Amino acid sequence: MPDVIFPVDQSKPFREQQLVGHNRWHPDIPAVATVKSGDSFRVESKEWFDGTIVNSDDANDIRDCDLSMVHQLSGPFAVEGAQPGDLLVVDILDVGPVPQQSGPVAGQGWGYTGIFAKDNGGGFLTDWFPAAYKAIWDFTGQKATSRHVPGVEFTGLIHPGLMGTAPSADLLAKWNHREAQLIATDPDRVPPLALPPLPSNAVLGSLTGADYERAAAEAARTAPPRENGGNQDIKNLSKGSRIFYPVFVDGANLSLGDLHFSQGDGEITFCGAIEMGGYIDLRVEIIKGGMETYGVTTNPIFMPGIVEPRYSEFLTFVGFSVDRNGTQHYLDTTLAYQNACLNAIEYLSKFGWTKEQAYLILGAAPVEGRMSGVVDVPNSCATLYIPTAIFDIDVRPSSTPPQRIDRGQCAVSN
Amino acid sequence: MPDVIFPVDQSKPFREQQLVGHNRWHPDIPAVATVKSGDSFRVESKEWFDGTIVNSDDANDIRDCDLSMVHQLSGPFAVEGAQPGDLLVVDILDVGPVPQQSGPVAGQGWGYTGIFAKDNGGGFLTDWFPAAYKAIWDFTGQKATSRHVPGVEFTGLIHPGLMGTAPSADLLAKWNHREAQLIATDPDRVPPLALPPLPSNAVLGSLTGADYERAAAEAARTAPPRENGGNQDIKNLSKGSRIFYPVFVDGANLSLGDLHFSQGDGEITFCGAIEMGGYIDLRVEIIKGGMETYGVTTNPIFMPGIVEPRYSEFLTFVGFSVDRNGTQHYLDTTLAYQNACLNAIEYLSKFGWTKEQAYLILGAAPVEGRMSGVVDVPNSCATLYIPTAIFDIDVRPSSTPPQRIDRGQCAVSN
Amino acid sequence: MPDVIFPVDQSKPFREQQLVGHNRWHPDIPAVATVKSGDSFRVESKEWFDGTIVNSDDANDIRDCDLSMVHQLSGPFAVEGAQPGDLLVVDILDVGPVPQQSGPVAGQGWGYTGIFAKDNGGGFLTDWFPAAYKAIWDFTGQKATSRHVPGVEFTGLIHPGLMGTAPSADLLAKWNHREAQLIATDPDRVPPLALPPLPSNAVLGSLTGADYERAAAEAARTAPPRENGGNQDIKNLSKGSRIFYPVFVDGANLSLGDLHFSQGDGEITFCGAIEMGGYIDLRVEIIKGGMETYGVTTNPIFMPGIVEPRYSEFLTFVGFSVDRNGTQHYLDTTLAYQNACLNAIEYLSKFGWTKEQAYLILGAAPVEGRMSGVVDVPNSCATLYIPTAIFDIDVRPSSTPPQRIDRGQCAVSN
Amino acid sequence: MPDVIFPVDQSKPFREQQLVGHNRWHPDIPAVATVKSGDSFRVESKEWFDGTIVNSDDANDIRDCDLSMVHQLSGPFAVEGAQPGDLLVVDILDVGPVPQQSGPVAGQGWGYTGIFAKDNGGGFLTDWFPAAYKAIWDFTGQKATSRHVPGVEFTGLIHPGLMGTAPSADLLAKWNHREAQLIATDPDRVPPLALPPLPSNAVLGSLTGADYERAAAEAARTAPPRENGGNQDIKNLSKGSRIFYPVFVDGANLSLGDLHFSQGDGEITFCGAIEMGGYIDLRVEIIKGGMETYGVTTNPIFMPGIVEPRYSEFLTFVGFSVDRNGTQHYLDTTLAYQNACLNAIEYLSKFGWTKEQAYLILGAAPVEGRMSGVVDVPNSCATLYIPTAIFDIDVRPSSTPPQRIDRGQCAVSN
Repeated sequence: MPDVIFPVDQSKPFREQQLVGHNRWHPDIPAVATVKSGDSFRVESKEWFDGTIVNSDDANDIRDCDLSMVHQLSGPFAVEGAQPGDLLVVDILDVGPVPQQSGPVAGQGWGYTGIFAKDNGGGFLTDWFPAAYKAIWDFTGQKATSRHVPGVEFTGLIHPGLMGTAPSADLLAKWNHREAQLIATDPDRVPPLALPPLPSNAVLGSLTGADYERAAAEAARTAPPRENGGNQDIKNLSKGSRIFYPVFVDGANLSLGDLHFSQGDGEITFCGAIEMGGYIDLRVEIIKGGMETYGVTTNPIFMPGIVEPRYSEFLTFVGFSVDRNGTQHYLDTTLAYQNACLNAIEYLSKFGWTKEQAYLILGAAPVEGRMSGVVDVPNSCATLYIPTAIFDIDVRPSSTPPQRIDRGQCAVSN
Repeated sequence: MPDVIFPVDQSKPFREQQLVGHNRWHPDIPAVATVKSGDSFRVESKEWFDGTIVNSDDANDIRDCDLSMVHQLSGPFAVEGAQPGDLLVVDILDVGPVPQQSGPVAGQGWGYTGIFAKDNGGGFLTDWFPAAYKAIWDFTGQKATSRHVPGVEFTGLIHPGLMGTAPSADLLAKWNHREAQLIATDPDRVPPLALPPLPSNAVLGSLTGADYERAAAEAARTAPPRENGGNQDIKNLSKGSRIFYPVFVDGANLSLGDLHFSQGDGEITFCGAIEMGGYIDLRVEIIKGGMETYGVTTNPIFMPGIVEPRYSEFLTFVGFSVDRNGTQHYLDTTLAYQNACLNAIEYLSKFGWTKEQAYLILGAAPVEGRMSGVVDVPNSCATLYIPTAIFDIDVRPSSTPPQRIDRGQCAVSN
Repeated sequence: MPDVIFPVDQSKPFREQQLVGHNRWHPDIPAVATVKSGDSFRVESKEWFDGTIVNSDDANDIRDCDLSMVHQLSGPFAVEGAQPGDLLVVDILDVGPVPQQSGPVAGQGWGYTGIFAKDNGGGFLTDWFPAAYKAIWDFTGQKATSRHVPGVEFTGLIHPGLMGTAPSADLLAKWNHREAQLIATDPDRVPPLALPPLPSNAVLGSLTGADYERAAAEAARTAPPRENGGNQDIKNLSKGSRIFYPVFVDGANLSLGDLHFSQGDGEITFCGAIEMGGYIDLRVEIIKGGMETYGVTTNPIFMPGIVEPRYSEFLTFVGFSVDRNGTQHYLDTTLAYQNACLNAIEYLSKFGWTKEQAYLILGAAPVEGRMSGVVDVPNSCATLYIPTAIFDIDVRPSSTPPQRIDRGQCAVSN
Repeated sequence: MPDVIFPVDQSKPFREQQLVGHNRWHPDIPAVATVKSGDSFRVESKEWFDGTIVNSDDANDIRDCDLSMVHQLSGPFAVEGAQPGDLLVVDILDVGPVPQQSGPVAGQGWGYTGIFAKDNGGGFLTDWFPAAYKAIWDFTGQKATSRHVPGVEFTGLIHPGLMGTAPSADLLAKWNHREAQLIATDPDRVPPLALPPLPSNAVLGSLTGADYERAAAEAARTAPPRENGGNQDIKNLSKGSRIFYPVFVDGANLSLGDLHFSQGDGEITFCGAIEMGGYIDLRVEIIKGGMETYGVTTNPIFMPGIVEPRYSEFLTFVGFSVDRNGTQHYLDTTLAYQNACLNAIEYLSKFGWTKEQAYLILGAAPVEGRMSGVVDVPNSCATLYIPTAIFDIDVRPSSTPPQRIDRGQCAVSN
């Protein structure tokens, strides 16, 4: 069974671990360990806010969270012989919450989902949900339930929200350039259009002194997915998946973190997946020259695992690209999916859940968001599939009035 | 077994059928038949270009097609007792190509997919594929193959691309207003931002004279999906699906057309599904006052059928919202999906298919397009899932060089 | 689309059709049509009792049915070039009830399931259910419901119960020999151990005179599956399946019949599938010498289709090989499955269904019967999986008392 | 996360563990721990031969194994308040091999399958495979491969082969009576018809002295499944399953063991599942009086989990109840399944595997065995479904000669 090459003591802060990871992308961050092609190994992980979000019934921690500290990444791990131009094959052998621990840190038997406040992070529907909310989810085997969202239970499709190879210096420069250009178009926007490099709270592994200062000033934030994979938040990257990452630096320098117990397509509340620390078992291989051979240069590709939960019945919501003011937009799939989500929230609210609870469900449960039509000008058509089996009550439309759940309430800030 | 309430003679033009349907949306188009809640019935359908796209090896017909004539809709069908505010429940009992006919019209044993030229329709990747292309697909039972795209075979998930209730006068006015406003922002764009009302070639059922003139001038084009459903192009609306449509006029006035033998999520080549005529068996019911009861006001909702083809292994492509010039866009999911598609096309081209063939595959085969991450500013993350079993060769990445297909070529214009 | 090479007029008896099929197996029955390798064609079929079972509310017809007349087979169809030792590849392109007809013959919008009386056919649980029962099932698209078994609805997995190639004279002799030996061990058993050749009611296609007399005396009954396939009653041989039959005579001489709208594994009530007439579209090919190449000599092999109904939740019953008198049997899987079925019937009866209704459900609905353990001496362990979604009520065990269905009753004989 | 209530040190024999379990069924074996309804807890398990089967390339250990020592059961666990007549609800929260250990005991990164010799255990096809064989399977995440069976890889559906409640004294007496009667019909049979009580090697938890002597003389062997569940070897009893056990004694006294990494339906080689030690996490509840309420008296019922591996393509073999000597048997499903297995073995041997390897594949891989027809006298029809994706080569029949695997060999005895 795989050896632990990156241990995490969940009771200690990220910076005080035996091996220190990183929360920015930079080619100069030294590898913490080296593995061989064909090796299997275990990596432990701290949840993305390093334990500052607690198992409580208020959302003050979400409201006041410090986004400069995310994500707590384990790594980088160098793979012997990997060179720029290769593809790094990564098999996810296993992934789960912290084994056999109960405790105060997410991953120790529980996780959380949150809705960020508009002025501190925001989210997909932040114009409709500008305040902070939170739900704590308890794990019973593969299943999650929440005292803050009664009437819902689902099987987690556990996955790492974030995994990727290190960027080269050139690639990093490209990121910083293009994102700075975007920010410059509306630098004071709330929430911001993108997150520029930020030395404050930067953790860069074993880098120190002038090396640290220089790298911290230019290291990329970890929020967005990019050419190296990164924070893709693809819910189907679960156990059994095989991913093919472009390699940009010698050794590939793979890092990962942001483990999720479950997530809906889109991770719409931003802090939407059920966040947790835990472990992941990986196996790596190299396809020499694979980037050119397969034309895989701008993004990883992957093959999802074959043991995803099996659902047979779905309730599907549709949205298109007219905004709630009635303005027509051109093939805007983001807007179309927002509308599908708003339609689902409106619908679920008829069964007794608050709209905030419904929003949290869509962020956390294994819902699917699909691009159904993207060419029928001017309306993009997006669809949101919710498995009906996750609800304790029958949520299908009929001629009898909807059953109503005893809704309780999700955690709010005070 | 259901009676045919809308017969179609595939050898005759749309306007010369026993019952004349329509190719625009307008509340004044009279119902061609009336059914009762609980009734089952069969509707026949002509393919969306009324048989002008032929079973040939050139794409001239696609290049020169007249978009003012689409879609050939069967209907409207009034449902006794349906009133504005109700939900119309529509069960798709069965749907298929023209039964037991071989012939020159799409649906008679074959169908077509096309890539519209940029200056006549365009499509999702029109900047990369500005010319017209076509592929003819032959049906053998549930499966489709194409002499223009060798090495690919898949099981069709047959569905109506277009189905919807009639808009009220108010709703129609709203559509025309908002779409005109969008067009006004760039009225000369090629392809256009939206399609305004166009009396030329308008078919409005039995409307004649001044009624026809007035309605033709304001009737909405059928290309986009809207509040009434319409051209949603949702590939999962297949046999066994149950749809809940908002009702905007007395009788609901359901219409449908644009049958597809198979389609990939997004229908990315615009003429991307395998287009055909055929039949559809429906059963209708009414949920009185259902729009308010369930909050279903801006779009239909639905429950997909449970007999979709079963695939177990997928190759998944990722895209995010940086364009091919390197410019960063903000959470643009449309762009992200374009990139995922371009990545897939690049990949498939390494196995011998031309890029046009690969594009046609993505439009026609049962690929899934998902919103994976929509909050990780500034990059939306879209994913495209291709079932590997549709290919005759092994398309998975490995350390041995890719097999190459004997590619032939798709139909081009000359 | 495939031409009809074997038409059936559902209003006429089997013997009076344009082409006369057969209801016994014999190598000398002449082919009614010849097809080429690669051909697609349609075959129509009469239900197995030739329309003598009616759409009524009593079971007298089942009680009094004449088993000497079954099955009404369409064929034989000769395939050019097929020779003994080849494998005949048969693709099921499509299969369904009689298209677009309503009427008094099973397959015209409805079908039936029956429990044979112990003294006229019997069945899997005939010791517990010695009388005759019947249920009429109405088809609405892919779904079946029954006025005789309320509270149940399921999607049919339509398939031919019987399909096979003609036996050679040697093979036929082997069948008759071994079955006669079995019958001789208990010749007066009720129900009989096997069914010997029976000239009465034998239909042998175009054979007449002395040829008919000779063949009728030795032709094999169609009830059992044998080396040629035959009455396998495999519910998964549905649309999209590919079967590889051993070829025993020149031309292969394929025949088929006994179409089923749906069936549970085992077809436990004997007349257990939902019986109907209808059509089937086939495509054939030959693998020369395939029997030896693949070692396929004693039975066909097949690959099931990929569009079976998708169910996610099952209630599973277990049985082992101790009989209801408490006597221990040695690895008797038949007995184990009987016990699993009896356990399921007992369980369902707690929700209000009569035991006869429950038995009929198990025969007709898409339940799965599995060999779970066959080596743990002395008990074989069989399991029966029932999809919970086929029931209108929640049938899962819980701490609250079971809901009860308003059971009505199935058709009985009077 | 669940506490370990039954720890196992894999390096020590079963009898020397901190808590001693049992390898016979008897009502007087004292519970090792008591849990409450609603509790979750972890149980560790030793593989069924207590580590005497080793990771080697010969099968001498299988040939010489001592069947009197099996199975090593963890338990019994008493549930507060459980009484005869109740149903004990057991949720399998998680189950797996020994976490994070590599070592010489099965479960420490590897497992084994074996074919017992005819004179020491036998198996489903022992007349064809009378000698002992073995294959070692290595675990890489969820997947298993074997140096002894090249060209095969599959995802394990991990499950406990054996779990059950304690019998009452009356039930135990009934078992002993009926099994003794069977043995008496052929007491010298090799392999035996059933296994009578055997004091030698009996382990009965903390029982000692006269209590031990008395109980050992009458305690039931653990090989067969019975009314209490027991050694059901149901491969679908995996993670996420919920089982409802009849309760026969106060406290229910649940025990379990015989963990399997993977198994084919039937576990046909007897030692056919991939055997291992490991852990299982359970949650228990009680349905008071549930045996009567639901009619669950002769066997447990269960609901399988929803995360089984997803396969889409199967190759299916058929068997019926004529034996290899040509003798016709009456509806003998055990024989039919033997024939289906023999047909599959013959087929796979055409691709290069030895017949022993093919037999081992069928025992270990996630193949499905189904009762397809059980009423078509005199032939029962059994089917065996093999997912084609488990093979490295294409095993589908075609007109080109079969690919051949470089077969290596399985472990034999010397």
